[in-house]
Amino acid sequence: MISKTGHLFASIPAALPAEQFDTLLQTGACRLERIISIGHATPPGEWYDQDGDEWVILLQGRAGLRFADEDQERKLAPGDYVWISAHRRHRVEWTSQNPPAVWLALHLESGCDAR
Amino acid sequence: MISKTGHLFASIPAALPAEQFDTLLQTGACRLERIISIGHATPPGEWYDQDGDEWVILLQGRAGLRFADEDQERKLAPGDYVWISAHRRHRVEWTSQNPPAVWLALHLESGCDAR
Repeated sequence: MISKTGHLFASIPAALPAEQFDTLLQTGACRLERIISIGHATPPGEWYDQDGDEWVILLQGRAGLRFADEDQERKLAPGDYVWISAHRRHRVEWTSQNPPAVWLALHLESGCDAR
Repeated sequence: MISKTGHLFASIPAALPAEQFDTLLQTGACRLERIISIGHATPPGEWYDQDGDEWVILLQGRAGLRFADEDQERKLAPGDYVWISAHRRHRVEWTSQNPPAVWLALHLESGCDAR
């Protein structure tokens, strides 16, 4: 876990072998995470299927997010945020390399209902 | 509450009589909020003293944040985030008008310990 006070765009490398996940905050009910994607995508044919709900916002770069129950990907720009209900299958089709894509994700524990 | 999917920088007015607070997400344990400040500041001599912890990030504009236990204000730029423990007295000294200051605040319920 990195510091609870800092700068979201600090220490972003120029390239990464895999996406980088930094936990900013962890409570019993939620986890706040910075994700750095530099041209990364979910491997072909794979889908995320998460036990908990997730609220995610893209804050730098560009990305394509696809839900299994939608025909087309959603093109995300900085400031776009998306609600991903538990077990709603999704994948990241692509992310920008320059600048890197920087996301802020709030993961809610399973059973923690959002109103 | 506004939609759980959207754009953080949408519908930002040019001026506001008072700061605007939009709840993006509400669970039993946490509340995610967008705050728009357009030149607003905490009234002179007043301090926030909150029952729960707060994690807050500035995502547009500039702001000065002062803690009662610190001599100098912290100057915040987009991407700067700050942890505000419950009952740590603080105030917003100033915010930019052009562009407006846009914050994302995660409020944790009292008793919801962050690790």
